[in-house]
Amino acid sequence: MGIVTSLPPSELQSSVPVVTGPVAAGGEDVLTRLVALIGEDLSACNTAIVARMHSQVALIPQLAAHIVAAGGKRLRPVLTLACARMCGYAGDRHINLAACVEFIHTATLLHDDVVDESVLRRGLASANAIFGNKASVLVGDFLFARAFQLMVADGSLEVLGILSQAAATIAEGEVLQLATQNDLGTDEARYLDVVRGKTAALFAAACEVGAVVADRPAAEAAALREYGTCLGIAFQLVDDALDYAADQETLGKTVGDDFREGKITLPVLVAYAAGSEADRVFWRRVIEDSEQTEADLAHAMALMENVDAIRITLDRAAEFADAAKAQLAVFPDSAYRASLMEVADYTVSRVR
Amino acid sequence: MGIVTSLPPSELQSSVPVVTGPVAAGGEDVLTRLVALIGEDLSACNTAIVARMHSQVALIPQLAAHIVAAGGKRLRPVLTLACARMCGYAGDRHINLAACVEFIHTATLLHDDVVDESVLRRGLASANAIFGNKASVLVGDFLFARAFQLMVADGSLEVLGILSQAAATIAEGEVLQLATQNDLGTDEARYLDVVRGKTAALFAAACEVGAVVADRPAAEAAALREYGTCLGIAFQLVDDALDYAADQETLGKTVGDDFREGKITLPVLVAYAAGSEADRVFWRRVIEDSEQTEADLAHAMALMENVDAIRITLDRAAEFADAAKAQLAVFPDSAYRASLMEVADYTVSRVR
Repeated sequence: MGIVTSLPPSELQSSVPVVTGPVAAGGEDVLTRLVALIGEDLSACNTAIVARMHSQVALIPQLAAHIVAAGGKRLRPVLTLACARMCGYAGDRHINLAACVEFIHTATLLHDDVVDESVLRRGLASANAIFGNKASVLVGDFLFARAFQLMVADGSLEVLGILSQAAATIAEGEVLQLATQNDLGTDEARYLDVVRGKTAALFAAACEVGAVVADRPAAEAAALREYGTCLGIAFQLVDDALDYAADQETLGKTVGDDFREGKITLPVLVAYAAGSEADRVFWRRVIEDSEQTEADLAHAMALMENVDAIRITLDRAAEFADAAKAQLAVFPDSAYRASLMEVADYTVSRVR
Repeated sequence: MGIVTSLPPSELQSSVPVVTGPVAAGGEDVLTRLVALIGEDLSACNTAIVARMHSQVALIPQLAAHIVAAGGKRLRPVLTLACARMCGYAGDRHINLAACVEFIHTATLLHDDVVDESVLRRGLASANAIFGNKASVLVGDFLFARAFQLMVADGSLEVLGILSQAAATIAEGEVLQLATQNDLGTDEARYLDVVRGKTAALFAAACEVGAVVADRPAAEAAALREYGTCLGIAFQLVDDALDYAADQETLGKTVGDDFREGKITLPVLVAYAAGSEADRVFWRRVIEDSEQTEADLAHAMALMENVDAIRITLDRAAEFADAAKAQLAVFPDSAYRASLMEVADYTVSRVR
């Protein structure tokens, strides 16, 4: 099973230069330190994940294992575990709740596979490509339901409320993304609404649950929620930049997925806004009319380079990473807090 | 908005004869009586459904309305409402919980649209055909999450446990169906496992919640759960028969959907088991090898008629309807109980 310590090298280095933004310590060090801090919790969480995705229907654990255990970073459950410990929590409820967070994340990945028709995910063939659309939708539904069963067993209505709201917000963000697809009239605020929904909502909930399980005051829960929101936005902005900047072989992710789907992301909006009239004709053809030839992705990337679209996107990501770190000021200094600070920087620096 | 009183005529009469089984009073009378009993509750439930499927993301209520408000029978929430009242419940929590049941049902319909590639549902073009796979998956996810938010607001962990388990069981049943697809080696027991999951689990939960909300003893909750299970199985068996027996124009449902997908249902298993070697060669070609020509559906229906496969399926349905009614013996006689008895008969007699 993949855990944080077995990250592929591709996650730690890339050929894309970061032009600006805070520079963290090496990504490997950041993750190693965090895993050292919560290593036992993470092992227990991984065990819970494997145990709870079991079903007598064999295809379910088979397919779920393909994506749950395929070497993901476990970033979201790691956040739950680290936030709970930073809040002084000494029990073990956070283990299963972190597993819930990962199940919800995995369910959205499986449904996203159907949605995005992406061929590669984490360097492996996607579950969808191997098992088909049907199985991806249904196993996603199973994991989602299983997450709620685990929360019910935990017994906290507050946690149930946080994660059911996150699930609704994720779906809203994904639908909003669908509505903005191919629409170059989308502005940055609306794009950020999409990102807040589809990505940041689960980061926010994952962090907030850490404070709630530790029974901390509302202000601390709110601070962790905002930390997660900003971290999630930074994370997604970097992902959106990578879709036009990464090397497919080293990143293990299909480059140009967003482009081919006509997805509206910040690099596209920046390039469109700053482009010449000829550039705009190009963008309208490839994004709004979905008329693309093989050379178009390279041309799109060249246009982005002309106007610094990737750098500008990464700058925005760095701003959100800084905002995330600022939220941690309400907590006393600790190894956990230091590590959560570093994670924010790592989110941006992972493209270096 | 469609409510029970506005059922299309097609739901109430059909050209398919019932060869045997208990004969209920006219379906229209059964439903009219039930709606008269719980009419106010059902109106309040419909209002809650419309209010709670709202989202600032306009596509969500648009798409949800297409399927939630398109004239479905509301059979599952009606069961929750009627069971709660039969149990003497005098509050209003059952209204929102019935809406949760309908949301979960609608989510599975939306995901089933993706899965089944069905073109018609309830006589309208399916949401999938109009809005696409992506939107169907995501709006289904939204409604599923919304259902859990409503349950959290209600505040009963017991209800949350019942419906989260139902959701997991539904997904397991659907995946098991996928695993048995095209497999004529499936036996009736395994087929019934699929039906218990994909259909009966939500009927069971819908009924059980009625007893739980009324704070009735565990034996009564168990009886209603079993009533729902048997009713759901009967309902699905009839549906499976209709896929080979209904008149598409009057039923408003695509005939032969199951056949084209190579779905294993009881009519197929009966026809395969009782068929000649030549018949079996036919079944293996069309179901296992998915090699079908246009004339094959009519031939399949003729082979079923030869061995009484539809009658045998409806007989099994009638047995489960009787088993459902037997569970109601633990409740004192009341108009609600009488109506729930009639609903069991109606489930089978709706094919008359």
